[in-house]
Amino acid sequence: MNNSALLTDLYQLTMMAGYYENNLNETATFELFVRNYPKNRNYLIFAGLEQILDYILNLKFTEDELKYLRNHPVFKDVKDDFFNYLKDFKFTGDIWAMPEGTIFFPNEPVMRITAPIVQAQLLETYILSMFNFQTMIATKASRVTTASQGRQIIEFGSRRAHGPEAGVLAARASCIGGCIGSSNVYAGHKFGIPIYGTMAHSWIMAFDNEEEAFEKYHKLYPDNTILLVDTYNTIEGIKKATRISPKIKGIRLDSGDFYNLSIEARKILDDAGMQNTIIVASGDLNEYKIKDLIEREAPIDVFGVGTELVISADAPSLGGLYKLVEIEKDSKVIPKAKFSQNKNTYPGKKQVWRFLDKNKLIKDVIANEEESYPQQNAIPLLSLIVKEGKLLFALPDINQIKQHCLNNLSILDKQSLDLKNPTCTKVEISENLENKHNQIKDNLCNT
Amino acid sequence: MNNSALLTDLYQLTMMAGYYENNLNETATFELFVRNYPKNRNYLIFAGLEQILDYILNLKFTEDELKYLRNHPVFKDVKDDFFNYLKDFKFTGDIWAMPEGTIFFPNEPVMRITAPIVQAQLLETYILSMFNFQTMIATKASRVTTASQGRQIIEFGSRRAHGPEAGVLAARASCIGGCIGSSNVYAGHKFGIPIYGTMAHSWIMAFDNEEEAFEKYHKLYPDNTILLVDTYNTIEGIKKATRISPKIKGIRLDSGDFYNLSIEARKILDDAGMQNTIIVASGDLNEYKIKDLIEREAPIDVFGVGTELVISADAPSLGGLYKLVEIEKDSKVIPKAKFSQNKNTYPGKKQVWRFLDKNKLIKDVIANEEESYPQQNAIPLLSLIVKEGKLLFALPDINQIKQHCLNNLSILDKQSLDLKNPTCTKVEISENLENKHNQIKDNLCNT
Repeated sequence: MNNSALLTDLYQLTMMAGYYENNLNETATFELFVRNYPKNRNYLIFAGLEQILDYILNLKFTEDELKYLRNHPVFKDVKDDFFNYLKDFKFTGDIWAMPEGTIFFPNEPVMRITAPIVQAQLLETYILSMFNFQTMIATKASRVTTASQGRQIIEFGSRRAHGPEAGVLAARASCIGGCIGSSNVYAGHKFGIPIYGTMAHSWIMAFDNEEEAFEKYHKLYPDNTILLVDTYNTIEGIKKATRISPKIKGIRLDSGDFYNLSIEARKILDDAGMQNTIIVASGDLNEYKIKDLIEREAPIDVFGVGTELVISADAPSLGGLYKLVEIEKDSKVIPKAKFSQNKNTYPGKKQVWRFLDKNKLIKDVIANEEESYPQQNAIPLLSLIVKEGKLLFALPDINQIKQHCLNNLSILDKQSLDLKNPTCTKVEISENLENKHNQIKDNLCNT
Repeated sequence: MNNSALLTDLYQLTMMAGYYENNLNETATFELFVRNYPKNRNYLIFAGLEQILDYILNLKFTEDELKYLRNHPVFKDVKDDFFNYLKDFKFTGDIWAMPEGTIFFPNEPVMRITAPIVQAQLLETYILSMFNFQTMIATKASRVTTASQGRQIIEFGSRRAHGPEAGVLAARASCIGGCIGSSNVYAGHKFGIPIYGTMAHSWIMAFDNEEEAFEKYHKLYPDNTILLVDTYNTIEGIKKATRISPKIKGIRLDSGDFYNLSIEARKILDDAGMQNTIIVASGDLNEYKIKDLIEREAPIDVFGVGTELVISADAPSLGGLYKLVEIEKDSKVIPKAKFSQNKNTYPGKKQVWRFLDKNKLIKDVIANEEESYPQQNAIPLLSLIVKEGKLLFALPDINQIKQHCLNNLSILDKQSLDLKNPTCTKVEISENLENKHNQIKDNLCNT
């Protein structure tokens, strides 16, 4: 991934210069959260933290980049001091965050950054784009894997992701959300994600006939032969597959009516004594279609899910926000909040407390940082992971994050995971926090 | 951008090994096209070629990547020869393409790659993800800028794009499609795209009061002051803005009812003698909302468009395809086609001819490569740009591509650009190509 400090919006840099020139580089706290549920969602899975930390802890401005900025007309009245400061830019703040793979709900801060405002301001654009995308995909993947009731889901969508990097990030987030792996090789190499593949229509078409294409593939990959059977005529393709070897691992359906084709395919395979040959289906699948196929007992073992997963088709954007909640001025802490129409925020550093009873989620409470509920079987979800610019722990690997996500899902009741009529988790604002909010609003209206 | 050869699907590599091991490394031709119009679209703008060529002409496998592949269980029966071949991988083929910014329609190949099949196969995933995304965004941007009837559109969506790279690519594609620029600094530096910005709510909130925030910003950026007026109360914010200086460049509305607010803002500004102070609006905008605001004569000068543009919200994926159309075996050219349900393709190398009359588009004809219509005022859209692995021309810069796109749009009649009831351009398949297609189908069914 690219860590250029320029992966940001111009106004972050103009504001930074403004803070710097006005000697306003006080310590500020920003929080990352989502205001509303995206369409069809009643929980979200936090993902993208590893890439966000990698960016924050390693970003620097190259000479070339600084020259570009220095020469941009908008900065003509900004003094050189600021650009010299950027030359030595280093993040020196504290970061609190939920672990990746944690389930969270609207208004809950998943990450809290406290740093000189010049530093904290710069990070907004990158943090949001990474958080918004991976969280959206991990959540979608969780819905798809929940719908599959144990059948395996592989992420197959790189070609329809929003560019090559989005394909890699989608593979990672899909894995966190429950997929067994991806077709993306870069994601396999970089993150240790299991990678899978079958064959394309071009393989079949490159040979003189379908049977030869099947044979040649099986000869080279005797233990990993999954034959794509729909290039010319699906049923004929399946019959040809049975003649290749009883040891082929599977067949893949990539078009047509998956329900009827899978029934027919299972029969043809079973009649040929190939009870262990699996059926893979791919092509325009999503959680609703998979749920339907499984309810009708379609004998499909593995679903390859592409487009709808990697663009989160029914909810293709997530509106994460990164908002100033507190500033320290002359050793005084000043809580901050915003009161635009439908866009208000809660002031001050916050913590999220999760109340459990017998390992089931009762409610979450968003509270001021200094509040505490340890005696009530509640656990705080945010913890300090970066102190004064230093990472305190080794980050978990993808398997640990995935396991954490699974553990988190297990605390939701069954109805919360229903695709059509899910119940929503109760999220409360603590009385103290609500009071603080009202107090600031009153002060503001009276000035 | 990252050029790792591993930015691909695993099956491309397993198929490559298969072709290699079977001495099937014949010259093959693949074509890139879209089968159907995405929702609400009646034309597409080709974008992403520069990044695709950069990838193809520079990709190589690092030792580390080869080691990862060599050790992957799926390749256990593949001989070392193949990995030695990958070590020296170099693209040696020919590429024909439409220029970036060209308008095209379903079934028209926008790019044609002829190379040893082992090379051509590898490229599919990257080509599709780059083409699908940038083409989708350039097309969306074109719709938004058409709707704006000359008011300026700036792309503001990095934080909602599908990851940081998608933000940069969206900025580029938006510019091709007609935006005057982007907020993305990396895109500015890398592609020479004009970059713009105002200020965030955090800037306002970092000061003791709104007026101080406005003043401090104006002092530092006297020629570039666009004040964000909705942090607390929009109308009060606009009034405060008039007290800062009559020379401020503009104000930005970021919430509320843009129609009423812009009318009121214009009145407040005009009454203060600030007729030249512009009004910028941002927040959940798209082509339909912009069209409506302009039809109602809302006095908004610049629209900042974010989420809906960078994810192409009403059509968030594009189904580009990269299909084998021809293979050369023992010096014989064998045209290839696919006949799956609703997924058939046309065989052989193709050219697209555009028929114009008085600079207006009459129709396009998709023909066999060797057909020719020069006497009928028709121009071929595909030209040779890479020969035996070498780029033949310097690629155009972003401004040239944007101008080419504008010129292309001008050949469409007004009704083709209507957002609600557009007419569709006529695209014909040449008689020769149709015959070739039927002939292959007959042959296949008789074997």
